Amino acid sequence: MDKKTASLSGAFKGNTEPKSFSKNPIKGTKFTIAISSAKGGVGKSTFATNFALALKSTGSKVGILDADIYGPSLPKMMAIKNKPESEDGKSLIPIEQYGLQCMSIGFLVDEETPMIWRGPMVTSAIKTFTEKVLWNNLDFIVVDMPPGTGDTQLTFAQQIKVDGAIIISTPQEIALLDVKRGIKMFDKLKVPILGLVDNMSFFESEDGEKHKIFGEGGVEKISKNYNKEFLGKIPIDIDLRVAADTGKPLVEECPDHKISKIFIEMATKIKGSFL
Amino acid sequence: MDKKTASLSGAFKGNTEPKSFSKNPIKGTKFTIAISSAKGGVGKSTFATNFALALKSTGSKVGILDADIYGPSLPKMMAIKNKPESEDGKSLIPIEQYGLQCMSIGFLVDEETPMIWRGPMVTSAIKTFTEKVLWNNLDFIVVDMPPGTGDTQLTFAQQIKVDGAIIISTPQEIALLDVKRGIKMFDKLKVPILGLVDNMSFFESEDGEKHKIFGEGGVEKISKNYNKEFLGKIPIDIDLRVAADTGKPLVEECPDHKISKIFIEMATKIKGSFL
Repeated sequence: MDKKTASLSGAFKGNTEPKSFSKNPIKGTKFTIAISSAKGGVGKSTFATNFALALKSTGSKVGILDADIYGPSLPKMMAIKNKPESEDGKSLIPIEQYGLQCMSIGFLVDEETPMIWRGPMVTSAIKTFTEKVLWNNLDFIVVDMPPGTGDTQLTFAQQIKVDGAIIISTPQEIALLDVKRGIKMFDKLKVPILGLVDNMSFFESEDGEKHKIFGEGGVEKISKNYNKEFLGKIPIDIDLRVAADTGKPLVEECPDHKISKIFIEMATKIKGSFL
Repeated sequence: MDKKTASLSGAFKGNTEPKSFSKNPIKGTKFTIAISSAKGGVGKSTFATNFALALKSTGSKVGILDADIYGPSLPKMMAIKNKPESEDGKSLIPIEQYGLQCMSIGFLVDEETPMIWRGPMVTSAIKTFTEKVLWNNLDFIVVDMPPGTGDTQLTFAQQIKVDGAIIISTPQEIALLDVKRGIKMFDKLKVPILGLVDNMSFFESEDGEKHKIFGEGGVEKISKNYNKEFLGKIPIDIDLRVAADTGKPLVEECPDHKISKIFIEMATKIKGSFL
């Protein structure tokens, strides 16, 4: 029998090429920076909160939007337990914590409630957060993106003016594949990539030895191959994880910590490319 | 002014309660086991491939379906570079590797191509993989689920007879939130939970010291609180990561490795609950 090699049908292929859309900035904000990684669990939310606080420490007015509808982590990472208020029953006032204006689906539902939603519901929630939240005079809004290359990414790229994306990855081979997919996605959707970060680069035990648990150097190599900025490495650090787990990010809790200094240096660099 | 505390509107709330559906088993398979974690990057795919191979080593016929449309990792983890064949242009023949029948969206597209798709496209791809793949006489099909609680999870839970789910997590607090959401999702969707696995439990350096990088004991505690089986701990292991990165999973490459033995023990236990 004549066997054919299978590939994607024309209908599927057609849909991988997005159309062009008119894009609007998020009201009440100047610049939108997306913190992204096609792969989950690489420390994106820990990066986003600490990076936002680092931007704030440079004198900017900063907000953080948790765009991860399925796995919001902002309430826990920023120790926010109250619900946002609304003056008219339609718009939402962001919650201020550690000097950041914050919004997350996790403020609206019990933290253990799963959002078992299909794509169009997610898109609708993202639109609420970008159109109905009264962000107040922000220089930067940092958007903590969910993993993947789906509804949330498409909604941002097609309908919202994203000024730049930072791609986070751990250095193991299997994660790097997702980095390449992420770069191609942003290039295709015409979102500028501000740079790549190598997270959980190594673990330093008490004797000073550096254990390259997830391998080495992959993210920097990809940055070069794809002609993107390499923003630096952040090691695995128990203080950083504990601070995230206890609701006071390290940059806020301990701005002089060596890890905090890495965040502040990156934030200063990124800010310099905008202001 | 009269300020109200915001919460989800009725329309949103209504949609968090799924309806009931008629469910069919995946053709050519006896039991469907979903490997899940609401959070990404916890080692789900590494677990799924090694667990499938461990099941095979107990004498079962096993297939693995990579249901992560946005971040397929099966081609890389199993070193599969060829495309699946089709005898009639509609159905797909799974690719056999290391004795497992395998299918992934990554077999159909270039590995660096991002699938920039909205939810309905994802649902359509999942239906193709569960209805049009010629799985051949399998005892078990292991499904490597994507992170989140969205389209893929809903499609499986509503339309496919899933016999049980294994939830994987790393032990840090922020990951445990996603475990709780995952448990609630499966309970709501009436998918039996076979048990929870604590992955990347600790890192043992060469001097034998155990570093609890991501904290300790959280997954086991949640298992008890929610009255679910605790299947055990898997430490961070460089051999396990390297094997995944080089395309020959550790259970296949080195079945006598201490980590392989953990997988085989878990697989034997799970198998015993079905056969």
